[in-house]
Amino acid sequence: MMRLSTPGFARFSQATNLNITYGGGEANVAISLACFNIPTAHVTRFPANDLGQAATALLRQHQVVTDHIIYGGDRLGLYFLETGAVARASKVVYDRASSAFAQLEPGMLNWEEILKNARWFHWTGITPAISAGAAQSCLEAVRVANRLRITVSADINYRKNLWQYGKKAHEVMPELVAGCDIIVSSIGDASDILQIKPLKEETEPFVSVCRQILRQYPRIKKIVNTKRGSVNASHNTLSGMMWNGQELLHTPTHDMTHIVDRIGGGDAFMAGLIYGLLTYQDDQQALDFAVAASALKHTIEGDANLVTVAEVEPVMRGDSSGRLKR
Amino acid sequence: MMRLSTPGFARFSQATNLNITYGGGEANVAISLACFNIPTAHVTRFPANDLGQAATALLRQHQVVTDHIIYGGDRLGLYFLETGAVARASKVVYDRASSAFAQLEPGMLNWEEILKNARWFHWTGITPAISAGAAQSCLEAVRVANRLRITVSADINYRKNLWQYGKKAHEVMPELVAGCDIIVSSIGDASDILQIKPLKEETEPFVSVCRQILRQYPRIKKIVNTKRGSVNASHNTLSGMMWNGQELLHTPTHDMTHIVDRIGGGDAFMAGLIYGLLTYQDDQQALDFAVAASALKHTIEGDANLVTVAEVEPVMRGDSSGRLKR
Amino acid sequence: MMRLSTPGFARFSQATNLNITYGGGEANVAISLACFNIPTAHVTRFPANDLGQAATALLRQHQVVTDHIIYGGDRLGLYFLETGAVARASKVVYDRASSAFAQLEPGMLNWEEILKNARWFHWTGITPAISAGAAQSCLEAVRVANRLRITVSADINYRKNLWQYGKKAHEVMPELVAGCDIIVSSIGDASDILQIKPLKEETEPFVSVCRQILRQYPRIKKIVNTKRGSVNASHNTLSGMMWNGQELLHTPTHDMTHIVDRIGGGDAFMAGLIYGLLTYQDDQQALDFAVAASALKHTIEGDANLVTVAEVEPVMRGDSSGRLKR
Amino acid sequence: MMRLSTPGFARFSQATNLNITYGGGEANVAISLACFNIPTAHVTRFPANDLGQAATALLRQHQVVTDHIIYGGDRLGLYFLETGAVARASKVVYDRASSAFAQLEPGMLNWEEILKNARWFHWTGITPAISAGAAQSCLEAVRVANRLRITVSADINYRKNLWQYGKKAHEVMPELVAGCDIIVSSIGDASDILQIKPLKEETEPFVSVCRQILRQYPRIKKIVNTKRGSVNASHNTLSGMMWNGQELLHTPTHDMTHIVDRIGGGDAFMAGLIYGLLTYQDDQQALDFAVAASALKHTIEGDANLVTVAEVEPVMRGDSSGRLKR
Amino acid sequence: MMRLSTPGFARFSQATNLNITYGGGEANVAISLACFNIPTAHVTRFPANDLGQAATALLRQHQVVTDHIIYGGDRLGLYFLETGAVARASKVVYDRASSAFAQLEPGMLNWEEILKNARWFHWTGITPAISAGAAQSCLEAVRVANRLRITVSADINYRKNLWQYGKKAHEVMPELVAGCDIIVSSIGDASDILQIKPLKEETEPFVSVCRQILRQYPRIKKIVNTKRGSVNASHNTLSGMMWNGQELLHTPTHDMTHIVDRIGGGDAFMAGLIYGLLTYQDDQQALDFAVAASALKHTIEGDANLVTVAEVEPVMRGDSSGRLKR
Amino acid sequence: MMRLSTPGFARFSQATNLNITYGGGEANVAISLACFNIPTAHVTRFPANDLGQAATALLRQHQVVTDHIIYGGDRLGLYFLETGAVARASKVVYDRASSAFAQLEPGMLNWEEILKNARWFHWTGITPAISAGAAQSCLEAVRVANRLRITVSADINYRKNLWQYGKKAHEVMPELVAGCDIIVSSIGDASDILQIKPLKEETEPFVSVCRQILRQYPRIKKIVNTKRGSVNASHNTLSGMMWNGQELLHTPTHDMTHIVDRIGGGDAFMAGLIYGLLTYQDDQQALDFAVAASALKHTIEGDANLVTVAEVEPVMRGDSSGRLKR
Repeated sequence: MMRLSTPGFARFSQATNLNITYGGGEANVAISLACFNIPTAHVTRFPANDLGQAATALLRQHQVVTDHIIYGGDRLGLYFLETGAVARASKVVYDRASSAFAQLEPGMLNWEEILKNARWFHWTGITPAISAGAAQSCLEAVRVANRLRITVSADINYRKNLWQYGKKAHEVMPELVAGCDIIVSSIGDASDILQIKPLKEETEPFVSVCRQILRQYPRIKKIVNTKRGSVNASHNTLSGMMWNGQELLHTPTHDMTHIVDRIGGGDAFMAGLIYGLLTYQDDQQALDFAVAASALKHTIEGDANLVTVAEVEPVMRGDSSGRLKR
Repeated sequence: MMRLSTPGFARFSQATNLNITYGGGEANVAISLACFNIPTAHVTRFPANDLGQAATALLRQHQVVTDHIIYGGDRLGLYFLETGAVARASKVVYDRASSAFAQLEPGMLNWEEILKNARWFHWTGITPAISAGAAQSCLEAVRVANRLRITVSADINYRKNLWQYGKKAHEVMPELVAGCDIIVSSIGDASDILQIKPLKEETEPFVSVCRQILRQYPRIKKIVNTKRGSVNASHNTLSGMMWNGQELLHTPTHDMTHIVDRIGGGDAFMAGLIYGLLTYQDDQQALDFAVAASALKHTIEGDANLVTVAEVEPVMRGDSSGRLKR
Repeated sequence: MMRLSTPGFARFSQATNLNITYGGGEANVAISLACFNIPTAHVTRFPANDLGQAATALLRQHQVVTDHIIYGGDRLGLYFLETGAVARASKVVYDRASSAFAQLEPGMLNWEEILKNARWFHWTGITPAISAGAAQSCLEAVRVANRLRITVSADINYRKNLWQYGKKAHEVMPELVAGCDIIVSSIGDASDILQIKPLKEETEPFVSVCRQILRQYPRIKKIVNTKRGSVNASHNTLSGMMWNGQELLHTPTHDMTHIVDRIGGGDAFMAGLIYGLLTYQDDQQALDFAVAASALKHTIEGDANLVTVAEVEPVMRGDSSGRLKR
Repeated sequence: MMRLSTPGFARFSQATNLNITYGGGEANVAISLACFNIPTAHVTRFPANDLGQAATALLRQHQVVTDHIIYGGDRLGLYFLETGAVARASKVVYDRASSAFAQLEPGMLNWEEILKNARWFHWTGITPAISAGAAQSCLEAVRVANRLRITVSADINYRKNLWQYGKKAHEVMPELVAGCDIIVSSIGDASDILQIKPLKEETEPFVSVCRQILRQYPRIKKIVNTKRGSVNASHNTLSGMMWNGQELLHTPTHDMTHIVDRIGGGDAFMAGLIYGLLTYQDDQQALDFAVAASALKHTIEGDANLVTVAEVEPVMRGDSSGRLKR
Repeated sequence: MMRLSTPGFARFSQATNLNITYGGGEANVAISLACFNIPTAHVTRFPANDLGQAATALLRQHQVVTDHIIYGGDRLGLYFLETGAVARASKVVYDRASSAFAQLEPGMLNWEEILKNARWFHWTGITPAISAGAAQSCLEAVRVANRLRITVSADINYRKNLWQYGKKAHEVMPELVAGCDIIVSSIGDASDILQIKPLKEETEPFVSVCRQILRQYPRIKKIVNTKRGSVNASHNTLSGMMWNGQELLHTPTHDMTHIVDRIGGGDAFMAGLIYGLLTYQDDQQALDFAVAASALKHTIEGDANLVTVAEVEPVMRGDSSGRLKR
Repeated sequence: MMRLSTPGFARFSQATNLNITYGGGEANVAISLACFNIPTAHVTRFPANDLGQAATALLRQHQVVTDHIIYGGDRLGLYFLETGAVARASKVVYDRASSAFAQLEPGMLNWEEILKNARWFHWTGITPAISAGAAQSCLEAVRVANRLRITVSADINYRKNLWQYGKKAHEVMPELVAGCDIIVSSIGDASDILQIKPLKEETEPFVSVCRQILRQYPRIKKIVNTKRGSVNASHNTLSGMMWNGQELLHTPTHDMTHIVDRIGGGDAFMAGLIYGLLTYQDDQQALDFAVAASALKHTIEGDANLVTVAEVEPVMRGDSSGRLKR
């Protein structure tokens, strides 16, 4: 997607120009992983016009492999962003109707070919929410990935304003989730998407939900979640938790006192988690890295978390002092 | 429509921000007429979101009445523009799929109410090319206008990349054109839209076409056209001609040696023509005003011709010296 | 007035360009009310030049009726703004000498005509401070409004750097204040303008002042005030209070931790108060709305509070979390 | 004066920010001479505020001595500029009412002290047109300069929109012109200001006027003038002529095909002339340098001609090829 | 190299910000060829810092392979550009001292590996002029290319301000030129670099020089050259010629009437020539393509010619009308 | 040095333009003192090109005397800055190799002449770290200053990434420090540069270090230091301390909650200290002024502290409320 954001804190009604970046859940994860030096490809469908090419070029600039992108369809999905401050929330106007990606149909993407050398496949809950075709293509991918024994992760992420093509999330998602090894899910997502709610008899609701999910979806090994505290639009806090089937891990809470750009925080977390699980021996470190990466994202303009491992590691270890580097 | 243009001469692949203006054929005509102090309303459909409101606000800023705009549908039509120079043409990427305007349906606009105090109704060939609903709504308007004895003008303007909803221009347009008093049409437009071609036995092909049109469409009184010479993308020439049933009028050729923004030249011509016909006694002056107005448009950034009558008149009278006004 | 502000935090000595917005006390109130969908007209005098027209166009863009603006005089009043941070205060250089508005003379504005369909008239203490003519025109308006039984409000707002035309505030203002139903006044304003000071025997000084004002100015029904805490230039707090003749109402304190633009906070409060008093049943809600509106203003660039009722209401009800709206 | 210009070719009604430069006739001459490495001081009155200081700093940046500037008065004179193209003229909105300079009074500037080490004093016809005080201060300066045998030059430059303080140009100017050694004057200026018109019996009207001027104003030795051809606002031509009492000198015509900024062309000519007369042996070279300098000015953004002698000389010698310098 | 250019036509002394692009002769050729869909790699040395990475990312964005770039050395070479107009030339300040590329040493680049799958190697005369190490590395490459029977081309391009490391061009270049199949050389370059001058007895000096070169350097098959006419800095003309050992080919002259950015015109020509020779059957078409590509470059901001084959071809065939593409 | 900083919070990889300011330790001190109305000259070496001239012009704009600057050498030293936020540190890429200043040689600067009317000479530890020539020239200056009984101050400031010309700091600095009256030094600097460490038996380590320094360097009278607390990159705290041979003075801690630009904080402190020691009777006030000045620097864009004495004084006295100044 192309993101068009008003400069500074200008409202839509004030803007006479818009800043361009490119984003979207999976693209953000791909770019962030590429910044961590993990070879990554982004798979999507762009229109066969100058905007589709510009989107491709931006991914390539950030060292994301773009060989599997296909071209066609009516238009590039867009979203418009106005950045809030203090008590005024940021505002997003999605403009995805008739996008090339929404017009994706099963069979268009040759997942066997795409995934043949991959070791990880990640998708988000946005994709199956966009259109029936996108959902089916995603399911194709998950099935191929499962067959090829590639790790599958998903940020299942329920957004009620999406899901307008006639299916409900809980009709579509369970089959997709069943193919995952790792999911990001809040208690609310689990309820909306998987129709699983905390049992009253369990003291820790997140663990209650996780236990049920692991029971129903045996491929899933880890369920992770972030907890965002919103002091106001300019100041948030963030921590993470993970249920790995045995214990509930927590991270310290990061204090993001002067947010530059909050969009993509979840994708930065996911990229951090994938990096962490690929790199560290234990889940705690992976989770700590993921939350530190997401905290840093809030200081970066644009959707994607353009930070390096060398920048995340000190924050992960508790040094958030931000001292000048000469 | 929102226009998003790259700054300066940047290509789409280079731009990191885009300038916003709002335009579209009929809106451009409305704004230009408002700048000539002719009270004007713009009738369209915008989405019920912040972008639709911003588009409305911009029209209002230019003193266009926005009371008849209706709100709904998926999205605001957009177009992306990259400005060329010399041998490099400007490039437009339209992004109109699923726009609120394309989703216009007959009956949505209450033309009786809208037109009850009007003295002129103008439409362009873009509208019926966008969708069946837009074409039908346009036809409703033309019929009401005819009934109310309001002057109807149209820039019939054939663009082959439009007309993708299953009908061809020549199936839809004749009925609409039949309700017009004045049309802008080139020889090519007449052929593509009205299937009328110059007769070989007539020496002046434009006159040949005009005679046939006037015969077949008895309501039409005047047919006008502009002739653009393209030295290159930075330097064009422009003249106009009119067949008023009796004689073929010509204007001097304007030399636009350092084009600032070429988009909307035709709409500026149309607005000038409407102003001229409402204001001057004879067709020649009206036509001269229209071409001078269009020539000035090429010096204005954005789609709409933000010039005053006091600025057009000297150019119309042959003073293109552009001497500094202190 | 045109406001010319340095970009970002640039000092006047650093700026190579200036951002334009249009503002001024009453205009800010009018624009904010228009954003709350209250039909509003702004009455002023602009010079008959391109700047006066641009100022008019901006008001119109924000749906403020501009039909009563008159044109003439030497120049458009300006002010220059440099935005501070932390311990560095923002700085304003006023440039109002010989402005079209300062040159306003009694009789120029036809208040009978202007106010004939109005239900509310609002003025600020800036107007009578500018020039004798402006003061007299304001008095004309108040008298007509009183005769037509239109509610009159004023932000009496004492600024000692103004009042340079030979009269003192306390010579001019009492007659104007006598025509008001509602005023905004601090204890300091009451002393400087109305020469009313808290009585030592009363425990709550604001109430002491209010009681005396209500006694001396029997038309006044409500006196409101805001209390601003200045942690530093980037972080302020704000609360409001109202004496309605019976009780002293207070609002919660809003914490504006990352101020975007502090100018116009008082005007935003006033617009919120007018909206609130026109909309809500009780004074407490009106006051709460006003303070919430003003708090949000601090997140908006420019003088005018471009927020909607739907945005103010959650803040008024205590939700300042600023969570992203997708 | 502060110049506030719209970016690119934006109209006043389109601009959301303005570029700042500082200019004004005499300041432009001073800056240009400083760029030619001629030590130069600018003498004026600025307001004692941040804008006055910023104006001073800009002069200092360009190596103009600012020690004689005095501070006081209401405001900094401004002008607003919108840049035209092709048939659309550039437009200037002056905003000088109540400026610190217009409020200059005789005696405020200590001309004895200021001029004690000077060898040249230059003034323009704008100064005596602004206010009686400015005219008188200028006369003081001319008298001191004459006493100290300093060369005096003037661009007498008649602008009918000025001269609004009750005196006419021909009442004020002759006394000032009488103190000059060199003046820039067109035939029109001579008529408007000195009431001298070409005699019909003389074939070359400029020479006719010059002969009369030299007769009536015996101190004057040289009268120079430029001739501007305006193909359109983007393309002008320029040549110069000088009557030195003996012969009429002409320069080649410079073709300024892609004007960047036309403002200050006359001041650049004047600075070039002063440099030329101080540097070259013969009048022809001085005049050629002046016109070449002015031609180059049209390629420089802002009022002042920021070019060096090394850049003017090739143009003066006929090389206008503008070949890239690596 | 990073190019830092002043915005618009600002002089260095006026700029408060600089636009970044990346360029340099060979990089420009590589980017242009990638835009023509010719797979291309750029081989250079960048510093191991954020600027070196940003330069790499930009190449990658334009689909240039960056796998062979090595990292190290003191700094990224820069150049500063101020864009001229009309009689004012553009000005370049090179800032290459101690650049990573100048510090290139023989052996650092593994040319065997780099060139193993290549079919064309291109270098420019800038490289051997920068430092002895760069010259030697270039020679290594040429030798490997010769051994691998890869076509070698060079723009031999003499710049006298370079060559400051103790060797003269004619001491270093002949050995390099001897390994070329195709060179770009003017008569002046041939004299400065190869010490070959036109023989007086031959009527066409370029042919005279070419004949001698082909005799002395038997590997060379084609010598090409461009002829630039400089009306002024805003308006140039361009044509090309080629001696292919048999005949002297000429192209039409392209008229670049409104130059946007003249830098990189030679590199665009070279890229066009390589594309043309790889694609077309006859030399004339290749040459025509090269000149058309170069003409288009003058409309593109930045060093590199971001145009497609589909854009060059009409210009090559004589259509320079630049008509709007909708 | 020219500073090239990415706009807003953009990373190097995102920036398409860079903001220019000029800075560097001693220049920053000079500009700040000039803003305090202390006549100041900056002595350095710039290249003899347009960038060197632009750097000079900027100093002159800020009223710094530039008469002693010499011109020559390869290039202007640069540094690139990316501004961090919260946990992301700001990042500096120095680009000083082969700078005109690094190429300074003893004897180039005529210190006798430069210092003949000076009353204070200030240098920083950056200078001797850059090159042997710079170190020697600095030593020349210190010796002349000592002979002329001019106060000498230094911010001895150890940066380990510098010092790459073959000498270590502790080999070069002691001789320079021996000529100082006042130094800024942390405990770490004292250890790295002077090889003096706190004695364990003394309770206050800074005092322990100071006592030893004063014993070894008898000319030194005062040692000052600042203590920066880094909540994160957006929020720092700052206090100062001074050992004047008798007592250890402390200042209150300033809370810089919304940092605009942290670079140059130490130079602002130094300028404040010099101003304070020249102006106030007691060391405590001088120190308080210095820390208040440095706190304000964090609100100013660019390296130099563009604030006035009138702005520092209230902060120094504890008023950091930053209330709007109208």
